[in-house]
Amino acid sequence: MRSIGKVAVLSVLDEPVAAGPFRIITGQVGSMGIEKVVAAVETAAKREGLIADDHYRGEHALYHAVLEALHGVCRGQLELGSILRTAGLKFAVVAGPKAEDQTAEGRWLAVALYGHIGAPRKGFEHEVIGLGINHL
Amino acid sequence: MRSIGKVAVLSVLDEPVAAGPFRIITGQVGSMGIEKVVAAVETAAKREGLIADDHYRGEHALYHAVLEALHGVCRGQLELGSILRTAGLKFAVVAGPKAEDQTAEGRWLAVALYGHIGAPRKGFEHEVIGLGINHL
Amino acid sequence: MRSIGKVAVLSVLDEPVAAGPFRIITGQVGSMGIEKVVAAVETAAKREGLIADDHYRGEHALYHAVLEALHGVCRGQLELGSILRTAGLKFAVVAGPKAEDQTAEGRWLAVALYGHIGAPRKGFEHEVIGLGINHL
Amino acid sequence: MRSIGKVAVLSVLDEPVAAGPFRIITGQVGSMGIEKVVAAVETAAKREGLIADDHYRGEHALYHAVLEALHGVCRGQLELGSILRTAGLKFAVVAGPKAEDQTAEGRWLAVALYGHIGAPRKGFEHEVIGLGINHL
Amino acid sequence: MRSIGKVAVLSVLDEPVAAGPFRIITGQVGSMGIEKVVAAVETAAKREGLIADDHYRGEHALYHAVLEALHGVCRGQLELGSILRTAGLKFAVVAGPKAEDQTAEGRWLAVALYGHIGAPRKGFEHEVIGLGINHL
Amino acid sequence: MRSIGKVAVLSVLDEPVAAGPFRIITGQVGSMGIEKVVAAVETAAKREGLIADDHYRGEHALYHAVLEALHGVCRGQLELGSILRTAGLKFAVVAGPKAEDQTAEGRWLAVALYGHIGAPRKGFEHEVIGLGINHL
Repeated sequence: MRSIGKVAVLSVLDEPVAAGPFRIITGQVGSMGIEKVVAAVETAAKREGLIADDHYRGEHALYHAVLEALHGVCRGQLELGSILRTAGLKFAVVAGPKAEDQTAEGRWLAVALYGHIGAPRKGFEHEVIGLGINHL
Repeated sequence: MRSIGKVAVLSVLDEPVAAGPFRIITGQVGSMGIEKVVAAVETAAKREGLIADDHYRGEHALYHAVLEALHGVCRGQLELGSILRTAGLKFAVVAGPKAEDQTAEGRWLAVALYGHIGAPRKGFEHEVIGLGINHL
Repeated sequence: MRSIGKVAVLSVLDEPVAAGPFRIITGQVGSMGIEKVVAAVETAAKREGLIADDHYRGEHALYHAVLEALHGVCRGQLELGSILRTAGLKFAVVAGPKAEDQTAEGRWLAVALYGHIGAPRKGFEHEVIGLGINHL
Repeated sequence: MRSIGKVAVLSVLDEPVAAGPFRIITGQVGSMGIEKVVAAVETAAKREGLIADDHYRGEHALYHAVLEALHGVCRGQLELGSILRTAGLKFAVVAGPKAEDQTAEGRWLAVALYGHIGAPRKGFEHEVIGLGINHL
Repeated sequence: MRSIGKVAVLSVLDEPVAAGPFRIITGQVGSMGIEKVVAAVETAAKREGLIADDHYRGEHALYHAVLEALHGVCRGQLELGSILRTAGLKFAVVAGPKAEDQTAEGRWLAVALYGHIGAPRKGFEHEVIGLGINHL
Repeated sequence: MRSIGKVAVLSVLDEPVAAGPFRIITGQVGSMGIEKVVAAVETAAKREGLIADDHYRGEHALYHAVLEALHGVCRGQLELGSILRTAGLKFAVVAGPKAEDQTAEGRWLAVALYGHIGAPRKGFEHEVIGLGINHL
């Protein structure tokens, strides 16, 4: 039984996953600014139609999902360059039911981030992952 | 090329992964107390010999890796029952190089947590993931 | 023009406010445990039908709105008795459009908390307020 | 019986309130930088004489009151533009007794903030409120 | 030139320091509960008359100074036993001018905490320090 | 019996301390940017050989020790200029055993920060201290 979070995590790890009832988009962003990560995910999700561009409601849902995923990436303070670190991240955004067998709960969003965080110097970094889930 | 974080995440998701140079243990814990999660991971890692039982050094490394993983799970406040939520989690602890091709950086630990968080009521929950990485 | 947040804040302050398109409930709770505050608000909102009792979706929306309101109350750490303080709070939960003229954005929830926080001793306390808003 | 926090909140909401023993100032500030909000409140409070310009003591009291109010506005991380959001806020600063009948406790400060937070796009935002109280 | 913070830190480290214009008290507390640390410091400060027992004002100043010192001790989350750690701490509370040559700024409080934090097992711990300063 | 944390704190306070088995370096940095503080400490520690310049492992250990020390300095949010405050700090970095009698636990790092934080205006500031300890 597929669930929205696991689908998002496997997608961001480039592992094979059948979409089933889920819509999946992926992309990547590298930055010392948290706001760049948020913008990259929002832009991709709107461009691909996972959330509507002309209503605040979906953007509000996505914004909080991204921030929650960033807590897993940042582990304490939602900061990158301001505490002298940079992140290179892939992202996956998934829209659909919370799980294949929970269609009565309406549509949800999952945002997964995976990549590396560390000093702006090759190899001086380690892996991070984050997942945020919100109702649409 | 396998890296310690991805190995930990795939292990905690029950996805197939070849251990290669990594030692992997897994387990599960459900609780409304963060301290129970920390204890379950520490006990398993010591019992299986991923960290020594009679030195503080390895426990210090593991403790901070678990707390970092819990940031991904808790997304803001390291609290469960005290803010009326419970978590059912699988965990994976991996010891080895930071990545297969980075043996010059010594031994590292990765802790991955995956499961569900929510109200203490079936279905009133969603998925969470967390990953903490530290040098041993 | 009435907006959901202002309606919630005026309601929790016992100021006169016309409900208009909004449904408003109020109550009170005093405790040294954050989880008691969350439970009191959730119980009232379900009993009065602002969110459905048999679906997670509305509870998820309300849970995060309460936590956001608690950030205003706690100002830094979502803790009461564990850092030796107690809170006596009134609460208001409002359901409806984000504002009277924004019906195209669907239904939203606002949770307002107002009261006193301090030592468990009469007069050794000061006022606090918090507001959380989420899409339903 | 009027209390300093309720006077501050009603003032920032533009609701009628009799000043009684309290001194009240109001203003507004819109920004993507937290430091601009702090500066706007401090400048207004000094210009109107609520705190002395030539002593640190009152500025220290006001600074912490503003930060506490900002916790209600930001709900988790004291950040605006760095996590891609902007705030348009009214502020009220009130100086006086903690409440009309508590003159034995000396002078206190209350800072209330009320407005909207969200994306830098009309309508893509919701209301926020914050209140900070400190002894002078 | 002596300053209130340095006097507090040297006192808590058992280093020699001349009191000069400062009043200094010290004590110790070991606990898995933050609230026990706060209570021990407050009780000692009231018993020795550094703050008045019958007014909230001084207790409010001291409470926030203790919480600020605890941020240095806890480094991220104001929690002890709830994240499976314990602390054995000495404390010093100092009342007086902010520094010997800054008497125009009135009376201030400094709270210093120093000791060990870690697992509840001898040697499985390391040192921590914290300092909180507030105007009285 | 000397311990690494106390040696770091006394060093940063310019108090006399015998190095014994510890290597001690000191320096100073004033800034409105946290990243400048991190960079100053890292640069000094590498230049003096407390950590290797060509491996990530030691930098990872030092980075987290600096962030932990900054929690004591910032007391809640790892931010300086972004919340309108500046810091003038001395720093000490110490490498060696966790304590003179604990050589079986390998090498550790301690980072102590001490100085003043406040508005960018002479005298409008108070003292702060922070200490971070990590295994090397």
